[in-house]
Amino acid sequence: MAPPFPLPAPMRRALDLAAQAQAAGEVPIGAVVTKDGAIIGEGQNRNRRDNDPTAHAEIVAMRAAATHLNDFRLTGCDLWVTLEPCPMCAGAISHARIARLYYAVGDPKGGAIEQGPRLFGQPQCLHRPDVYGGLAEVEASTLLRAFFAARR
Amino acid sequence: MAPPFPLPAPMRRALDLAAQAQAAGEVPIGAVVTKDGAIIGEGQNRNRRDNDPTAHAEIVAMRAAATHLNDFRLTGCDLWVTLEPCPMCAGAISHARIARLYYAVGDPKGGAIEQGPRLFGQPQCLHRPDVYGGLAEVEASTLLRAFFAARR
Repeated sequence: MAPPFPLPAPMRRALDLAAQAQAAGEVPIGAVVTKDGAIIGEGQNRNRRDNDPTAHAEIVAMRAAATHLNDFRLTGCDLWVTLEPCPMCAGAISHARIARLYYAVGDPKGGAIEQGPRLFGQPQCLHRPDVYGGLAEVEASTLLRAFFAARR
Repeated sequence: MAPPFPLPAPMRRALDLAAQAQAAGEVPIGAVVTKDGAIIGEGQNRNRRDNDPTAHAEIVAMRAAATHLNDFRLTGCDLWVTLEPCPMCAGAISHARIARLYYAVGDPKGGAIEQGPRLFGQPQCLHRPDVYGGLAEVEASTLLRAFFAARR
């Protein structure tokens, strides 16, 4: 169920970035980092283009935001991403001290927030963002389904 | 207990890289990626130097190896690291299709392999490397203990 408010601009931008990734032959996932409401880092999946096993949208966006801030921590920043983060990205979100995590749709196969290892619920986890999932389930899952259907 | 064989050269190199990180004011952790016995990627913790929340030794080494191979997967490659990987790095190891993971010492506070979320044991995990831990417990933990004692 879509939430009862217009889709926030950062999530609309993350969906645009996901569509750009798809057009480039990558898994269609996009992400942005905001601080005080302004976008300070953007990312889309770039694994194949960059020959980089770590280049998920979230990692790319957080690295860009950290470069922008000249700080290896993104304290007080928010991350908006079109799919529930995997363990790699969830770990990076915690290391970066992201304040709030917004994602468009859950990922039963690879998500690490509301399923699987539920990393932010692990006693070892040193920093947990506030989490808001399911913001744009139809838009994000339509993109992903079309992508994987085309590859079959 | 140290294993009953001389420390393999890639782990000796990872320990050297950890010492270099310490000299640069970073947490002393080093990593190398090998393929067919040759080092094809090196890394040390660079979070502070690079303003990068993701710049753990393992991530840096795997990105370098992937650039070297022009491939976003490190199929058939091994990763040698001085500390048990965290959830972020364990997730990246799985994405990269690392064949064998060797680490010097376990990390009760942040490790994700033999404790905490035990990511490679999660049913969601699509690729699990063979894992060899505890290869150089004294050398690696001496570096880490000296670093954290000096910061107190």
